[in-house]
Amino acid sequence: MILTVTLNAALDVTYGVDSLRPRASHRVGAVHRRAGGKGVNVARVLAGRGRAVTVTGLVGGPTGALVREDLRAVRGLRDALVPVSGESRRTVTVVSGDDGDATVFNERGPQVSPSEWRAFAGRFAELVREASVVALCGSLPPGLPSDAYAQLVARAAETGVPTVLDTSGAPLLDALGARPDVVKPNAAELASATGCEDAAAGAERLRGLGARSVVVSSGPGGLLAVTPGGRRRAVPPHRLAGNPTGAGDACVAALAAGLADGAHWGDVLSDAVALSAAAVACPVAGDVDAATYERFRTTVTVEDLHAPQPH
Amino acid sequence: MILTVTLNAALDVTYGVDSLRPRASHRVGAVHRRAGGKGVNVARVLAGRGRAVTVTGLVGGPTGALVREDLRAVRGLRDALVPVSGESRRTVTVVSGDDGDATVFNERGPQVSPSEWRAFAGRFAELVREASVVALCGSLPPGLPSDAYAQLVARAAETGVPTVLDTSGAPLLDALGARPDVVKPNAAELASATGCEDAAAGAERLRGLGARSVVVSSGPGGLLAVTPGGRRRAVPPHRLAGNPTGAGDACVAALAAGLADGAHWGDVLSDAVALSAAAVACPVAGDVDAATYERFRTTVTVEDLHAPQPH
Repeated sequence: MILTVTLNAALDVTYGVDSLRPRASHRVGAVHRRAGGKGVNVARVLAGRGRAVTVTGLVGGPTGALVREDLRAVRGLRDALVPVSGESRRTVTVVSGDDGDATVFNERGPQVSPSEWRAFAGRFAELVREASVVALCGSLPPGLPSDAYAQLVARAAETGVPTVLDTSGAPLLDALGARPDVVKPNAAELASATGCEDAAAGAERLRGLGARSVVVSSGPGGLLAVTPGGRRRAVPPHRLAGNPTGAGDACVAALAAGLADGAHWGDVLSDAVALSAAAVACPVAGDVDAATYERFRTTVTVEDLHAPQPH
Repeated sequence: MILTVTLNAALDVTYGVDSLRPRASHRVGAVHRRAGGKGVNVARVLAGRGRAVTVTGLVGGPTGALVREDLRAVRGLRDALVPVSGESRRTVTVVSGDDGDATVFNERGPQVSPSEWRAFAGRFAELVREASVVALCGSLPPGLPSDAYAQLVARAAETGVPTVLDTSGAPLLDALGARPDVVKPNAAELASATGCEDAAAGAERLRGLGARSVVVSSGPGGLLAVTPGGRRRAVPPHRLAGNPTGAGDACVAALAAGLADGAHWGDVLSDAVALSAAAVACPVAGDVDAATYERFRTTVTVEDLHAPQPH
């Protein structure tokens, strides 16, 4: 089983409007609600590919109840979310009918108490024993220690379970000392965390701080992987128009599946690029388009860049 | 007791952002949630002035539960909302920290079934017997007949209870045949419903269709009342900067209180202008600023325009 962790699970709400006009009052047409948060999206992609997957993290309040209700409908996905007393956050994405542009509002999430965090850590320690891989994804809700991911990565490592980490800012930097197996920032997150505009230099910086391997996503530019075995670049055959919001989550799903299978990095990266493209082809994060995936996975170019950097 | 009806009750959510930028992703700072819908705001103003007030209307789902929970905190307000199986709507108002501008997104509301509407009408018939005045406010949720307000106004009239109606478009026009006592459109709603740009002409049009009296609000321009006793204009002493969203609801609260007391139109209009100004002085609809109210209520100018138009 692959375990995904979403400490700041969300209800993703999408509002369709004719056109977004600041300072105006808008009638919302279609309203869509879906369980979200990066780890939930990763789990959805994995479940869709027939993987046994368990979702844990924190949920609370009426919005948390809606998150859980939505997850019940996902076949192959087990809900092991841990309740908190605060109210789970919503994200509101306003999509303009005239140009398809999306404007996003992200609530911060519930205030989590120290005792709630301890309860979660205890539950995580149980779940990780059943897992082949753990994917830890997204922002931290208020009240959590900034080394929350470090604690979870360390616990997984003690249990012998490899980790994939997809977060940014302080929670990313504070987790590196616990030596996560794969860290997946996007190019902007990497530059922001390291101050390096060059992706390879930024990735080496994160490895120097403790990450075993770093996979940097650059949207249509594909992936750069810096691993103990060397550097590789994986590039899609062509640019794909669509919705980029779920591409990073699909990439993490492929990395977690590859780690679980002990696959070769070249194959893992091809799969990650193809699955990311398949997510771009779908309007909602967590979905992937099977035809796009099949078309891309044999046409991704993977290039060995040069020998590994010792460290 | 004054009864207010909010058929499309809402949870009003306010998001504080640094600056609204279309196509960007925003971190939401402060999130405020409050029971809303025009009739709820009217009731809040009345309760704040020490009036016994009962709120009815339709609520459902987890959002409806939050609406009811919020109303429990309002002293002097009785919750007689009727449950429906659909989910109550939310409104999201995004307030930019840089310029204070508000951008509003209004969901449509739950789908209401014919049997739910019949159940509500039965409950309304009971409640109206205890009421001195009924205020019917706001939009209709999907599924309701467009003559929903006409049915309620007719039932109140049969019971001998006067009505104040604040709605727009088809629900307004379709209600006039039931002869509501006071109709309160704003100038834009009046022009849209009647095609008359001139407020007095538009008000006479609504009276011709069945409204006994029409009070037209024009923001800082004050109120124009066209009643069987003639036309009057009530104007605030000066323009007030602030939040105009709750001004109309405060005006309706004053009209309902005036009807309940059998007050003279001149006094009712002074009070309505002062209470509207007191709402503009507050950041949230349903609140009124006591000091502004006291300052304005003795300085509003009420002018008799000319003799009544026969009809």
